[in-house]
Amino acid sequence: MDLWFQEKQTPHLSMGCRVKKVLVHKNTNYQELSLLDTNVFGRMLILDGYIQITEKDEYIYHEMIVHVPLMTHPEPTSVLIIGGGDGGAAREVLKHSSVEKVIMVEIDAEVVEICKSYFPATANALKDSRLELIYADGREYLRNKEDEFDIIIVDSTEPVGPSAGLFEPEFYQGAYASLKAEGILVAQTESPFHNQDIITNSYTSLSKLFPVTKVYLAPVPSYPGGLWSFMIGSKKYQPHNNGLLQKEWQMEGCRYYTPQVHWSSFILPPFIKDFLQTANK
Amino acid sequence: MDLWFQEKQTPHLSMGCRVKKVLVHKNTNYQELSLLDTNVFGRMLILDGYIQITEKDEYIYHEMIVHVPLMTHPEPTSVLIIGGGDGGAAREVLKHSSVEKVIMVEIDAEVVEICKSYFPATANALKDSRLELIYADGREYLRNKEDEFDIIIVDSTEPVGPSAGLFEPEFYQGAYASLKAEGILVAQTESPFHNQDIITNSYTSLSKLFPVTKVYLAPVPSYPGGLWSFMIGSKKYQPHNNGLLQKEWQMEGCRYYTPQVHWSSFILPPFIKDFLQTANK
Repeated sequence: MDLWFQEKQTPHLSMGCRVKKVLVHKNTNYQELSLLDTNVFGRMLILDGYIQITEKDEYIYHEMIVHVPLMTHPEPTSVLIIGGGDGGAAREVLKHSSVEKVIMVEIDAEVVEICKSYFPATANALKDSRLELIYADGREYLRNKEDEFDIIIVDSTEPVGPSAGLFEPEFYQGAYASLKAEGILVAQTESPFHNQDIITNSYTSLSKLFPVTKVYLAPVPSYPGGLWSFMIGSKKYQPHNNGLLQKEWQMEGCRYYTPQVHWSSFILPPFIKDFLQTANK
Repeated sequence: MDLWFQEKQTPHLSMGCRVKKVLVHKNTNYQELSLLDTNVFGRMLILDGYIQITEKDEYIYHEMIVHVPLMTHPEPTSVLIIGGGDGGAAREVLKHSSVEKVIMVEIDAEVVEICKSYFPATANALKDSRLELIYADGREYLRNKEDEFDIIIVDSTEPVGPSAGLFEPEFYQGAYASLKAEGILVAQTESPFHNQDIITNSYTSLSKLFPVTKVYLAPVPSYPGGLWSFMIGSKKYQPHNNGLLQKEWQMEGCRYYTPQVHWSSFILPPFIKDFLQTANK
């Protein structure tokens, strides 16, 4: 049988991967969950039809969503991860020895359980004693928090289904309030080629709250267009301050992140600068 | 009718684009040529089943294959383009006022004729009086040339069909001989995710000839993996020398290239450095 998974990335664009085996296919309380073994990307977690992580390239996404904000902050001790049920963001956060406490708020317990069985390379991090896993809606969790976190990482799915609220101004306001005075928010903000509206909307929201709002980029071959955007909202520190990048940290096992990669990921081509300028600051 | 073009990018990976209209589909003397109008990428030129250029993203590829070597050279006057029948590389080369003569050696006259009809944004450059268009095999053309060009741009298709020879050591040797003493070769060298063997082979060949061999990167969403590699072989100049990037050139109309983008495109993540180290220098 010649089995292919077709991801409908946009109404007019798809990516197809040859499938060795369908390992899981079920509906959780929140979303449709599939786990495939593929030739090109290895194991692949799919939620509501969209690829979330793959064995072959998850390291790029996770290294870049985590080390950029954590290297920007001189001494991050308390970190909140919203989403990230696969454990990949937690794995990278826990590489930083300054971190004393990680709270991970994931809405869907079944994502975590299935990743524990099928993605040990990411999910093993969830066993760390510094990590507390809470099953809740990220927006609800933040409602009465103030001045608690050095870093908030929004490791969400696309803004459909359970993650839709994680791209709204009210959510960003809650995140801002729960950050300490020198805190940093980071969020994944989709493709600069195919989702310019999502990027400009998030940029508008964060620019109203944070004195420092910056977009940075990394290639993720399993994501639409192959180039992904992340957004930093920072209360104090500039994310491309070379001084902070001198922090003593060995970047153990990083295959994408380096301080030079960090710095260069903020260099945006004119076509991205142009559409960011349309954001209503 | 719900019509889709499926590009088989590797045996295990495909990209699908919804098609508005099939404009051309024929066999030339050298290859199968298709021209489609698509929703996501606009018009799209396909040779032997592989996407060559699309209206929406050709500017990234062409700006990066041209301006990086031409900004590295202090005064490029004579430029050879091998391939590039669509005219996009010629368009970018001709933006440099120091350039007095461009020779373009394209094997397939039908590619040029069809681009003149369907891709005026690139093919109009072929009318420029500084450009001489020769229909020939690039390898043959170089055979008796010596010390003629400041820049050689290898704007080839994948190393199958008529372009296979453009990735071989003999071709690179001919290119080296035909470059002046301060000359620079640039070639497109495929995907760092899916074609690591092509990159390491070209890197091995160029490193044996040129004192300066460097890989640089740019995102091209219509190409496999979304991230593309280019390779510079330079007899004298370092391609990320900031001094040369101060050249007075207005980068008119560039939507991807800037001197900062140029510089940062040479910053390679560890996973790429690692496989380049396996190249036999």
